[in-house]
Amino acid sequence: MTRTLWLCLSVILGLGVLLAATDEAPDYPQYTGQNRLLPPQNYRDWIFLSSGLGMNYSAMAMGNDQFTNVFVPQWAYQAFLKSGKWPDKTMFVVEERGAQSKGSINKHGNFQTDLMGIGVEVKDESRFPEKWAYFNFDEDTKSSSANPKQACWQCHEDHAAVEHSFVQFYPTLKPVAKKFGTYKQSVEQVQP
Amino acid sequence: MTRTLWLCLSVILGLGVLLAATDEAPDYPQYTGQNRLLPPQNYRDWIFLSSGLGMNYSAMAMGNDQFTNVFVPQWAYQAFLKSGKWPDKTMFVVEERGAQSKGSINKHGNFQTDLMGIGVEVKDESRFPEKWAYFNFDEDTKSSSANPKQACWQCHEDHAAVEHSFVQFYPTLKPVAKKFGTYKQSVEQVQP
Repeated sequence: MTRTLWLCLSVILGLGVLLAATDEAPDYPQYTGQNRLLPPQNYRDWIFLSSGLGMNYSAMAMGNDQFTNVFVPQWAYQAFLKSGKWPDKTMFVVEERGAQSKGSINKHGNFQTDLMGIGVEVKDESRFPEKWAYFNFDEDTKSSSANPKQACWQCHEDHAAVEHSFVQFYPTLKPVAKKFGTYKQSVEQVQP
Repeated sequence: MTRTLWLCLSVILGLGVLLAATDEAPDYPQYTGQNRLLPPQNYRDWIFLSSGLGMNYSAMAMGNDQFTNVFVPQWAYQAFLKSGKWPDKTMFVVEERGAQSKGSINKHGNFQTDLMGIGVEVKDESRFPEKWAYFNFDEDTKSSSANPKQACWQCHEDHAAVEHSFVQFYPTLKPVAKKFGTYKQSVEQVQP
């Protein structure tokens, strides 16, 4: 009986390890030496938070409008739903894509086209003294070091509604954060 | 030993049933009598295919521009990646959301706001003689009967790149469909 029991337990444990190995590992930040982040491979399987078109925080608009799609791993999203907070090791991917108006049967507005690059935001308290770090990748980037603090970190510090995340632009997360009292209402004020 | 073996098998089977009950059931179409579809509850946990802003297939643009986010269940998406085809019982949700330009620190372009309604496309060969059916829901809709054939079905029949799905507007699925030879290239031609 003991042998059978151990066999069964091994099977159950094995299934658990297999699930963890195939599903979860790519959803946590992976680095090379010197805290250089590897590009997340499977972010299109993550939870979609929202998208924008041509969003710009500067008074001067620049270049062609692009779509921005924001994704977060399933495990971090589930933790947020239960607490209104982002757990350590949360990653956000902002994917930039081209916008096209005339194409196939479409005559107005815009649909999404080619990938232009991705930005990654990581909450990793043990690696980064400022807790949050920001990285950029294009199609050929093998690994990326964190951007200087003044490039992204400061803006997220000053203007994000929940910790360093722009929940004011993620309509399904806003009521969750408000419920848990983690939403900074003041950031909704239009900046001059 | 036999009793322990049965116990273990029951646990494994129970876990399987639990997973199926919690994860998969809501990702298949659910109906009341007379083929009235119930609104999918958890589509925001599905795979995001793409979004558009103000997309319109008519020569005349109408009303305010809205964002449209398209989602498909994980299981159907995985099947598509392996075959370039949509399995029976596939559902698509097109979510319509408001668009706002000035808000918080945003100064240009648009971000997403309130939910305006959802459209659902279902492939259900045993229920619908035309295989594909189309439904609309607003926040208060408890169940919905399929739209008349000329409303959506005919346009998808005539202009969709893969079966009844507009893969020409889903940039990550295009190369998959092309690889499996299920992509109708001719639909990319701009319609007069």
